[in-house]
Amino acid sequence: MDYETYMKQALTLAKVSFDKMEVPVGAVVVKDGEIVGKGRNMRESKKSVISHAEIEAINDACKNLNTWRLDDCDLYVTLEPCPMCAGAIINARINKVIYGAKDSEMGAVSSVISMFDLDFCHRPKVVSGVLEEECSKILKDFFKKLR
Amino acid sequence: MDYETYMKQALTLAKVSFDKMEVPVGAVVVKDGEIVGKGRNMRESKKSVISHAEIEAINDACKNLNTWRLDDCDLYVTLEPCPMCAGAIINARINKVIYGAKDSEMGAVSSVISMFDLDFCHRPKVVSGVLEEECSKILKDFFKKLR
Repeated sequence: MDYETYMKQALTLAKVSFDKMEVPVGAVVVKDGEIVGKGRNMRESKKSVISHAEIEAINDACKNLNTWRLDDCDLYVTLEPCPMCAGAIINARINKVIYGAKDSEMGAVSSVISMFDLDFCHRPKVVSGVLEEECSKILKDFFKKLR
Repeated sequence: MDYETYMKQALTLAKVSFDKMEVPVGAVVVKDGEIVGKGRNMRESKKSVISHAEIEAINDACKNLNTWRLDDCDLYVTLEPCPMCAGAIINARINKVIYGAKDSEMGAVSSVISMFDLDFCHRPKVVSGVLEEECSKILKDFFKKLR
């Protein structure tokens, strides 16, 4: 499987958030090689703390597939998931999580905690560091622009 | 503060989910003694893995208060939050979490993991066991009915 192809799609979504003055994180859900869910961070525009890229992408996939179970799906996201998103990934039974940049402050997959190694009902596989530089750079550029 | 008064409101919401054949969990967000957000589990009806009671209540409060920060708010929920909801509670900077029944399989506040003791950006206070019996009974009754 070509991880970079789908991560580029997630990066494209992150760029939309960047242009709208949202923290630039993007995500896609992929099933059988097809993108079935798209999301980008919309916390400010939706005024909702829930609207992280992963949540939006998982919600979109659930709607498109008409199910809350995403067993056969992989999730690509530009930034390491926070505890909320890691929990949503477990609840949705996502097969594999592929992420780009690490999040030393809120990362719940490997940085602050490895939530997928705990004794919950499901343990997603993980691939990290895909297009890490690009995924990290867009965040750095955003916070530089903010200052 | 009278924890039981608000937990009863959460239980009332759980009962609505029960009647609609959803796992009966309810939640309210309280600010200055007033309920500013309500939620109940709607995973099946919304076909969305995100639609736990806490997420619905936090989303409702964010909308009503027009902010993603819920610093001055407490969250009452009939069942111990899962990792996703515990993460949402951290992200929203909820002041205090009051819950009823423990969840030995998915509980992320004390049962499987104590997420609020970890080194994330915010550590909510916790009160557990409020109306524990009623909160637990409605779940038991539901799963008995399902069988």
